[in-house]
Amino acid sequence: MNERFNLHILGSGSALPTNRRNPSAQLLRYERECFLIDCAEGTQLQLRKGKLPFNRIRNILISHMHGDHMYGLPGLLFSLHLLGKKDGLSVFGPPELKNFLDFIQASSKSEFGFPLEFHPLVLGGKNLIWESKLLRVYSFPLDHSIETWGFLFEEKEKNRKLKKKQVLKLNLAPIQLYELKHGKDIEIEGIIYKNEDLTNEPERISSFAYCSDTVFCPSIVPYIENVKCLYHEVTFEHAFAQVAQEKKHTTTKEAATIAQMANVERLLIGHFSARYDDVSILENECREIFPETYAVNDGDFYQF
Amino acid sequence: MNERFNLHILGSGSALPTNRRNPSAQLLRYERECFLIDCAEGTQLQLRKGKLPFNRIRNILISHMHGDHMYGLPGLLFSLHLLGKKDGLSVFGPPELKNFLDFIQASSKSEFGFPLEFHPLVLGGKNLIWESKLLRVYSFPLDHSIETWGFLFEEKEKNRKLKKKQVLKLNLAPIQLYELKHGKDIEIEGIIYKNEDLTNEPERISSFAYCSDTVFCPSIVPYIENVKCLYHEVTFEHAFAQVAQEKKHTTTKEAATIAQMANVERLLIGHFSARYDDVSILENECREIFPETYAVNDGDFYQF
Repeated sequence: MNERFNLHILGSGSALPTNRRNPSAQLLRYERECFLIDCAEGTQLQLRKGKLPFNRIRNILISHMHGDHMYGLPGLLFSLHLLGKKDGLSVFGPPELKNFLDFIQASSKSEFGFPLEFHPLVLGGKNLIWESKLLRVYSFPLDHSIETWGFLFEEKEKNRKLKKKQVLKLNLAPIQLYELKHGKDIEIEGIIYKNEDLTNEPERISSFAYCSDTVFCPSIVPYIENVKCLYHEVTFEHAFAQVAQEKKHTTTKEAATIAQMANVERLLIGHFSARYDDVSILENECREIFPETYAVNDGDFYQF
Repeated sequence: MNERFNLHILGSGSALPTNRRNPSAQLLRYERECFLIDCAEGTQLQLRKGKLPFNRIRNILISHMHGDHMYGLPGLLFSLHLLGKKDGLSVFGPPELKNFLDFIQASSKSEFGFPLEFHPLVLGGKNLIWESKLLRVYSFPLDHSIETWGFLFEEKEKNRKLKKKQVLKLNLAPIQLYELKHGKDIEIEGIIYKNEDLTNEPERISSFAYCSDTVFCPSIVPYIENVKCLYHEVTFEHAFAQVAQEKKHTTTKEAATIAQMANVERLLIGHFSARYDDVSILENECREIFPETYAVNDGDFYQF
């Protein structure tokens, strides 16, 4: 099993909230890290409803400056402050977000009790924005009515797995075990032991890409190729392809085509227009092209 | 019957939202007018849940610049825009709110499709801020950690009611009927008819006062005297009187004392600290001093 990512859907609707769908927000957990991706109005309540670890959020990523992706930030930050958060919080977002954060803080006349670092996203290609021992996070450009970024979360390459039985017989030194795990052959008293005889393939790395909001944009394929799980916006069914094009959103078949082109393992779709009470029509249209498609709902939980 | 006001409680909690209580927001309906009083994060969702007439809101009143009273404004305004609102919207609030509204609009890169008028509240005493044929709305100062206003909604004096049987016999002209309704005696062929013989007392006017947030503040009593319904914040039970004093909030017994001093008909209490899961302790403490006290919940509906 290689299910390291836990994804909680906090909002699966588009700009207009409905009784069943909040606008965009997701909590991605990996080991002890919690990333909040977008933060629509009501996100803090969705976190509470899901009994999710409010206080463990150390990184917030905002894709673009539309209200349905960021109007929950002031309330969330204020609540973290009231809850006594002391450790640092990093916010990644469009450069204009800095002014928004400063203004909110100034106008509400309350100084947050925790250090807040702002990291402006930069234009042009894939950029590493966060890294730990096990994980890297990148931003990349989407194509929407204003500057918008997608995010890629990628586990680092894992070591090859030792074939314990064979390795034990050889009574190897730590340096030799290290070399084996990193794919090298080893030599013992003039005999070459081939790496593939002593190790198995490493676990496949897991990865997640978040693409919302964007028009159909095949140029993102290189950034999200082979990800284990792709979240891509689907605002409309394909009959509204022209509306989607005008509003710089994506239809079912377009998102499924992206998933297919990028050879991803699973496609999650969300950001549904408020006109869809039943989203099975959207799921089914995607599945015609990409069978492993799932329409997400608020409160859903995925592991990969 | 004289129940002209319909009050919908959209949020009955204080700064930290809980699964059961949103922060402050209320919708007050009077005839065809809809006033939104305060607008915490999540207010637009509460309006939807209550199937309340979103689009009929023409006036929004913001008591002060704390997030739990105003962070729902950006999302609500943006949704009204998306829903195609065309008629005007007036926002009444602290002067700094203007910058907030301008900034939100600028930073989210979307121009609202409806005219938005901003009316800054002014300091010093009771000020008329809105008037129609039937109703007047006033602001008055509360005493909180930042400048904060309360609001008074007051029906205009009603006409005296004609005693139909007696009046019909006299075959009066319209001007005479008008004078009777306005309390004058009339003269017919030298005979004086006393007003009290031809009319009954007018219906008692209804009124509502909103007082949140504030420390215990007897100087507001003259502004809210004799109102039919008073909403007053009660953040803490009376055992926390010192905390309340420090944080500039009110306890049970203090709010009940205000209601008693002001001789109001009914006291609604809300803005409860998140520490209270069961608020009956707060309601009961108030009732020791002012029996007609009711602790409100999100979704409650009152008529008066």
